[in-house]
Amino acid sequence: MPRQTPKSEATRQRILAAALRVFRERGFDAATMREVAAEAGVAVGAAYYYFASKDAIVMAFYQQAQDEMAPALDDILDSARTLEQRLRGIIDQKLEYFAPNRALVGTLSAHSDPAHPLSPFGKATAPIRERDISYFARAVADSQLRLPPSILPYLPRLLWLYQMGLMLFWVYDRSPRQARTHLLFSKTLSMMLLVFKFAAIPLLKPLHRTAAELLKEIYGDA
Amino acid sequence: MPRQTPKSEATRQRILAAALRVFRERGFDAATMREVAAEAGVAVGAAYYYFASKDAIVMAFYQQAQDEMAPALDDILDSARTLEQRLRGIIDQKLEYFAPNRALVGTLSAHSDPAHPLSPFGKATAPIRERDISYFARAVADSQLRLPPSILPYLPRLLWLYQMGLMLFWVYDRSPRQARTHLLFSKTLSMMLLVFKFAAIPLLKPLHRTAAELLKEIYGDA
Repeated sequence: MPRQTPKSEATRQRILAAALRVFRERGFDAATMREVAAEAGVAVGAAYYYFASKDAIVMAFYQQAQDEMAPALDDILDSARTLEQRLRGIIDQKLEYFAPNRALVGTLSAHSDPAHPLSPFGKATAPIRERDISYFARAVADSQLRLPPSILPYLPRLLWLYQMGLMLFWVYDRSPRQARTHLLFSKTLSMMLLVFKFAAIPLLKPLHRTAAELLKEIYGDA
Repeated sequence: MPRQTPKSEATRQRILAAALRVFRERGFDAATMREVAAEAGVAVGAAYYYFASKDAIVMAFYQQAQDEMAPALDDILDSARTLEQRLRGIIDQKLEYFAPNRALVGTLSAHSDPAHPLSPFGKATAPIRERDISYFARAVADSQLRLPPSILPYLPRLLWLYQMGLMLFWVYDRSPRQARTHLLFSKTLSMMLLVFKFAAIPLLKPLHRTAAELLKEIYGDA
């Protein structure tokens, strides 16, 4: 990591913004560090001084996205009263923020392999993922959901996974203004909230047990 | 398509088998048609005569897989009595068949974009997909499921999607003998069957309505 002075930070920001423009115009796979440097008006060596690779630029993009969205997400969590409003607010905010770079997010969505450094499920992205999951934890926190204690602690992670599934649908959604994604979001959110409402029915206890066993095996102790 | 004589069909088969060996050893992305031809003991021109590209080989692999699995899948559907046994049989058969080429299937799983010619969700693979979905239709056919008529016709497609999700987990599952996938399969299958059992509860009617609306919008009329 280069030493952070105001000037070096400004250069780093300029290269990152230039890279996103190049990725949008040329596509992530075709774009080169040389083109990124030219767009930013710096020498190729300078671009490499700040970012070791295109992948490093993407990681910086993820981090910047999280930093830039934080105030809006805090606002949503502070002002929305119901779980529905919170989930809708968080996920709408993500879709809106990433819209200008939807094609780039699409390219990256090919990295479902957790071993890939840019995979949202891998080790390298764990800090970004955990911070993102923490918003869902706050959304759930005082929502008075009556889910079994064997399942509730896993809910923020499951909601995050739900968000990732929606985003995968969204990046390849060619309907005007991604109307199909918004329909999928709206209907599945309604269904999920109905399921939460009915989850306490004693009849459904066998379902709780199996779900809790699976969650514990896959995620470890909550 | 080259004219099919017994000899040309044998050569085509030999090239396909050689290609799968080369993909396993070198990885799909790194492998070249030249290497495939050398492994098959044919001229590069001959390899291109049978397969226009590596993608065409993959499509032939999909088709061959379906043809080779058909007798086993027919057996399972004829002999298994319950929906659980049938679904377990169909999906276990797929995982077993694809196991030697799990890395190749992993490479291909990056093509979630329906516009990619090898995407399981795209137009080019529609005949393979429809044939695959027909096995799930047969599994459901006389299982006496009491799902609402607004949802039941979509079930084969949803079960196929469930299979695709499991396979995506499986291709990146590094646990010994993919034990985590088998656990995920077993637990989610139990949960799904419980959900089917409880689906007829009148209390859950609002859930049916929303689900039916969504399915109709996404898939069109059943």
